[in-house]
Order: sequence, then structure tokens, then C-alpha cells
Amino acid sequence: MNADIINPFLSSVVNVLSTMAMLKVSPEKPSIKNDNISKGDVSGVIGMTTKTINGSMAITFPANVAFDIVNKMLGETVNEVNDTVTDLVGELTNMIVGGAKAQLEEKGYDIGMATPVVVTGVNHEIVHKAQGQKILMPFNCDAGKFYVEVCFDG
Amino acid sequence: MNADIINPFLSSVVNVLSTMAMLKVSPEKPSIKNDNISKGDVSGVIGMTTKTINGSMAITFPANVAFDIVNKMLGETVNEVNDTVTDLVGELTNMIVGGAKAQLEEKGYDIGMATPVVVTGVNHEIVHKAQGQKILMPFNCDAGKFYVEVCFDG
Repeated sequence: MNADIINPFLSSVVNVLSTMAMLKVSPEKPSIKNDNISKGDVSGVIGMTTKTINGSMAITFPANVAFDIVNKMLGETVNEVNDTVTDLVGELTNMIVGGAKAQLEEKGYDIGMATPVVVTGVNHEIVHKAQGQKILMPFNCDAGKFYVEVCFDG
Repeated sequence: MNADIINPFLSSVVNVLSTMAMLKVSPEKPSIKNDNISKGDVSGVIGMTTKTINGSMAITFPANVAFDIVNKMLGETVNEVNDTVTDLVGELTNMIVGGAKAQLEEKGYDIGMATPVVVTGVNHEIVHKAQGQKILMPFNCDAGKFYVEVCFDG
């Protein structure tokens, strides 16, 4: 997996969260995921297909980071992972892949997006099962750290 | 969502688990999911695209049911959700959608499969964010109950 594919996701995360949630987001250095550190409480997961390779993306938030984003985007105070939170995480997932898709198309990659699912549960973990390397992208924001993972076959 | 789409998933679950795991599986009546009863400890999640609609499928197991399937398919005794368990759940997810895809193609539906992700974590829950109805299919086996959910747009 090369920077051609990673960078559109990285910049899309920053774009979507800064534009939609006024969130100051600092990306940390992406790495190949060999361990299991990206546990979170609410995650958006989405499958992607291309003509040649398939893959998936997940964005995983600790609950307090998700609550902060809900507060900044909707002005609502939440303190449990309810429908408002999962709806927003689903929407963010769509918007991030949508943004990356637009950039990838300019580079000749044609991405078909499945619909997202949202996973809730304290300290769950997402394990990608595509055959390629799992790229882990950590991000920092005021409320804490969250993670984006991308994995494509091949 | 109609029986044309549901039945291939239902029969594929029974086929795959009876063939691969020698598991006697009894499907219960599918229902439209309005509540949140399908919590589990390990889930396979996969996105699907068609020319007209997109969606997702999840299969959610309590840990003890997943352990029993590992034991029956691989002859291995496991008592934690490790790589063996997540690999097997990822494979089952692929096989089930693969089986359903074959049946759906005979009916004129052309399904593109993304790669699966596997979710681990005690009592997590899967929330589909496609716009259509969430169909919940409970299954009984010796070790307990597990759930398959399918959701397509529209």
C-alpha cells in the first residue's frame, strides 16, 4: 500500500473534522499495524471495492472524543453512546470515505463504497481481514486520540 | 427488503456452518430489527455493493459459540478471542456472503463484496447505517444463539 492511497484518507479525515466539527486535528505518523492498540468505544466501519482490489476503513473513537465531536457539530451534550452518537459516527465515516474517494478518482482509482456500520461497546477492537498491510493513522484532537485504519487486498 | 434477498443469506449460513463446522443450526424467524438485542463478543462485518443499492451484513457470536465453532472446525480448544478465532470468523463471513452471492446472482442481483473486518470486545453491538430495514436472523446451535443481520439501502 502506497502514499497514493493513504494520503487521501489522511487529508480527508482532517478536512471533514475541521470543516464539520471545527476540530483541530493533528495527524501522527501513519504506521503499519502490527499490534492491537486501537481499541475504542465507538467505530465506523466501511467496505470499499475497486475493479481490482477490495478493502475496508475503520475510524475508532474513545467515547469522550465522540461526545466532544457531537457537542461541537450538533451543540448537543451527550454522555452515553446513543443513536445521536452512532448516527454521527456513521455520517463521518461516509464523509471521510467520500472525500478520499474524490481524491482517489483523480489518481485513477475508482472506489465503490458500501454503506457503513457502526460498532459500539467499551474497548472493542477492529481487525481487518483483507490480505494487505493494515495502515494505522493516529490523530490527536483536544479531547484525545482517535484512530483511522485502512486495509486493502494486495 | 424481500425474501428474495433474505433467503440466500439464511440458507448460506446454514449451509456453511453445517458443511464446514458440522454444526446443527436452526434458524429462527427473521424479523425487522427495532431493538438492540444482538450483542456479542466477536462479529464479522462485510460491506456489499450492487449497481443500484449498497448494504452490509454482520454475523455476531457470543464468545462461547465462537469457541465451539473453532473447536468443531479446527479441532482446537480456545478460551480467549485470539487470532485463530478472528481469522475463522472472518473466513465464515466471507464464505457466507460468497454462498449468498452465488444464489443472488441466479436471481439477477450482482453483489460486489468488500473484504470483511472482525470486531472483538465483550458485548459490543453492530449498528447498520444503510437507509433500509435491518433484518435480524437469529440462529440456534448446541452452544447457544448467534445472529446474522443484513441491511441494504432502499
